[in-house]
Amino acid sequence: MTDFGELPLRADNRSTPCCVDTARLGQYIGSMTMPTAPLDAALIDRFTAIVGQSNALSQDEAGATYLTEPRDLFPGKSALVLRPGSVDEVSAIVRLASETRTPIVPQGGNTGLVGGQQPRSEGEVLVNLSRLDQIREIDPVGRTITVDAGCVLQRVQEAADEAGLFFPLSLGAQGSCQIGGNLSSNAGGTGVLAYGNSRDLCLGIEAVLPSGEIIHGLRRLKKDNRGYDLRNLLIGAEGTLGIITGAVLKLFPKPKGKEIAFVGLSSVENALKLLSIAEGHAGASLTAFEFLPLIGMRFTLKHTEGARDPMDAEYPWYVLVEISSQRSAEEAGATLEALLTEAFEAGLVEDAAIAQSEAQAANFWRMREEMSWAQKPEGGSIKHDVSVPVASVPEFLRRADEAVLAAIPDARIVAFGHLGDGNVHYNISQPVGADKAAFLARWHEIGAIVHGIVAEMEGSFSAEHGIGVLKAEELRRSKAGPEYEAMRAIKTSLDPFGILNPGKLIQI
Amino acid sequence: MTDFGELPLRADNRSTPCCVDTARLGQYIGSMTMPTAPLDAALIDRFTAIVGQSNALSQDEAGATYLTEPRDLFPGKSALVLRPGSVDEVSAIVRLASETRTPIVPQGGNTGLVGGQQPRSEGEVLVNLSRLDQIREIDPVGRTITVDAGCVLQRVQEAADEAGLFFPLSLGAQGSCQIGGNLSSNAGGTGVLAYGNSRDLCLGIEAVLPSGEIIHGLRRLKKDNRGYDLRNLLIGAEGTLGIITGAVLKLFPKPKGKEIAFVGLSSVENALKLLSIAEGHAGASLTAFEFLPLIGMRFTLKHTEGARDPMDAEYPWYVLVEISSQRSAEEAGATLEALLTEAFEAGLVEDAAIAQSEAQAANFWRMREEMSWAQKPEGGSIKHDVSVPVASVPEFLRRADEAVLAAIPDARIVAFGHLGDGNVHYNISQPVGADKAAFLARWHEIGAIVHGIVAEMEGSFSAEHGIGVLKAEELRRSKAGPEYEAMRAIKTSLDPFGILNPGKLIQI
Repeated sequence: MTDFGELPLRADNRSTPCCVDTARLGQYIGSMTMPTAPLDAALIDRFTAIVGQSNALSQDEAGATYLTEPRDLFPGKSALVLRPGSVDEVSAIVRLASETRTPIVPQGGNTGLVGGQQPRSEGEVLVNLSRLDQIREIDPVGRTITVDAGCVLQRVQEAADEAGLFFPLSLGAQGSCQIGGNLSSNAGGTGVLAYGNSRDLCLGIEAVLPSGEIIHGLRRLKKDNRGYDLRNLLIGAEGTLGIITGAVLKLFPKPKGKEIAFVGLSSVENALKLLSIAEGHAGASLTAFEFLPLIGMRFTLKHTEGARDPMDAEYPWYVLVEISSQRSAEEAGATLEALLTEAFEAGLVEDAAIAQSEAQAANFWRMREEMSWAQKPEGGSIKHDVSVPVASVPEFLRRADEAVLAAIPDARIVAFGHLGDGNVHYNISQPVGADKAAFLARWHEIGAIVHGIVAEMEGSFSAEHGIGVLKAEELRRSKAGPEYEAMRAIKTSLDPFGILNPGKLIQI
Repeated sequence: MTDFGELPLRADNRSTPCCVDTARLGQYIGSMTMPTAPLDAALIDRFTAIVGQSNALSQDEAGATYLTEPRDLFPGKSALVLRPGSVDEVSAIVRLASETRTPIVPQGGNTGLVGGQQPRSEGEVLVNLSRLDQIREIDPVGRTITVDAGCVLQRVQEAADEAGLFFPLSLGAQGSCQIGGNLSSNAGGTGVLAYGNSRDLCLGIEAVLPSGEIIHGLRRLKKDNRGYDLRNLLIGAEGTLGIITGAVLKLFPKPKGKEIAFVGLSSVENALKLLSIAEGHAGASLTAFEFLPLIGMRFTLKHTEGARDPMDAEYPWYVLVEISSQRSAEEAGATLEALLTEAFEAGLVEDAAIAQSEAQAANFWRMREEMSWAQKPEGGSIKHDVSVPVASVPEFLRRADEAVLAAIPDARIVAFGHLGDGNVHYNISQPVGADKAAFLARWHEIGAIVHGIVAEMEGSFSAEHGIGVLKAEELRRSKAGPEYEAMRAIKTSLDPFGILNPGKLIQI
């Protein structure tokens, strides 16, 4: 087994954040999967007959849409891309795959960042769920929406809104990611603080098991204690235990008012104390608590057209606080003012601005949303998606900064994200004037340092992006022992031939 | 396999709600388990050596404390009761059990209602977790509490309260039930509407697997996407996949104010409309929405000392609405008044009383809490714990009432419970003057009618009490097919010798 620490990095000059030598990556990945025989023509015909000629694409026909992914790290390879139009077609595909031991890779909106949705050999069949895109039912009293897995997240948000309700899952990729993928990767986003991860927003699922059999679990029940929790097992399994084809999602009353403040602070410790005060005042009405560093603000203001600094002066740290009220904008505003007043009196806050208009609120959010992109013009960026206990975020930052700066003295650390969830996007921009390729070549060296500290602090090296191919070996190493063996036993028991998304998440 | 429909009923005159002929039940249960050899003296010595003589009890010594349960439906039988004092001792016990293929039954506070915590033959070893009763850590910033599985729920509530925080799980049995059992049965209760089931309140678990190996999963992370969700698989598994020995639980900011109204309504449909209005006004601040029928109110007022009717007149239905505010009692009161005003204006509400004192609030809650006990003096009661989609509760009641009254014309139906969760305690008191034994002998006939309607309405025959022994056969029948087979595959993969709580929940 090739050690993940040796994952080859490529020195290139492309503008994508890609830094992995895809040719060598291919060899590396190859070592993690079972050998896959190419599909023969007769088998391709049998798969094609299930979905019809127009929904069975060759590698050339599928091309960029299905076989490249956002970071261009995991080049897709597949002799056959299928676009089933019904759950029964998905079932028939998997049944045939099971019979013929053909590996299947399920794919939704193809926005995943860890390579989970990409086939890696011509012998793997890609099954794209996009044609399963119906909103099946909205229950306004029970506040649920039942959807096909291929529904784009934004469409679900809009359908909820039209019904006078609210679906809180919110991600950068929401215009193209699909619910099936959101659930399979247990996607996070900015709504987690008040509403939870994707897992917490799902009441029931329908899925095709590795045998091709369908689990009809589209339950709309808030309480149901009938046996093992297969729903939560399939959620977050990245398509390795079954293909999610439909889901019942929770909807929420639409907040009647939202108020947002942009706050300048001298330290992350103070941001954490502000969080406690905000939670004490607002409880579940605290719907966002994001944190940003000064350097990130400077990058955003420099590289984002039309972005304006919400503050009159610079501060070491910033926090974006959002309060939602079920009663009125006034109530949200009163809560926000009350918590800020308490924080000011406690000397925790340097300055604060409350958005006075929708445009201003949008500008506040823009500071947060552009933070990732604004690092690009500054050169190479080594990225991490980690979480630690919320109270440990300051200590994590202190230790990680010290270790990273010891390794790369002029590195520019842009640590930001979901403070209320303990989820830090710990990104490191290259030193000014450094060689980008040489900097990016240290990705794994730096990753090992950062993830080592995360492990010591009982954190996670995969907070919201999943495992896929990118972190499969790290998962195997870090969970070695009974936990990994239990996962492997479950995988083997449900997918004895290892046909579903082989090599992703779990190694059997 | 004996069909569950034939579960023998006993005509007796005991005051417990028991109605099952335990002798014949024993034969029935026996048919569901693997044959168990009695423990030999040498093996008992080996187990005893792990926990020490004083923590290894014989059947006679264990007696009532460990081997009888609340409903007296499932008489316990075990030659050996072990009380381990550490996780390592639990691990050593299970390791020895695995080596010797000895069946193990884990037990917490012994308050379960479906027999999951009772051993059923002298060859089964009972492992009681009560000595693992330490509160390990409270994290006031991250708002978590880390506890041993044997901590009594009420102690956890109190520890949270002392730390200025709030643990919302709340059950009738909270003075004796333990966290390990709460999680193993995914207990519900009155806090589910705003805070979720036990499952939703747990961030991490520590557990001993059937191999005796320990999973160290006491994570305090709000986001962690590293592999399959073993935590949720073990939660609700009723000790059949592992023994939970510790847990990290979520704490919440303590509400600064709570206000409660008792509302009289003409129909359950109107109660449902009131629920929508309440959710619209209060969102997550709506912390209880319980419903009660007139007949249940009459029983409670008649049989509960000191109980007073909160209303001046009688109404067909009642609802108890609780609003919690993070800011003040005034805010909670304003929200409550606003939603009641809207409901009055819409003609949904006949009368409403808002509690003016803690004593009055306690009296309102008492109406709800005594409802189960108040049925006892009225004779035999056939009970169900079902859930349907919230919007379907009125239709369920209409159909179930019609079918039950067709079977037993003068039956007195007392349907009450957690309307906001779609969870109905559909209890049926015997006709006035009827023969109690003859009435109770129809438990399964009536159960089949009620559960049949529940199934047609895509509901659950086990909303919050679990499967245990009582509903294991019904689970097998109702989920027959890929879902049950997937559960069975998981059980077999993790517990190949079937030593953990055999015959409970799943039949292998």
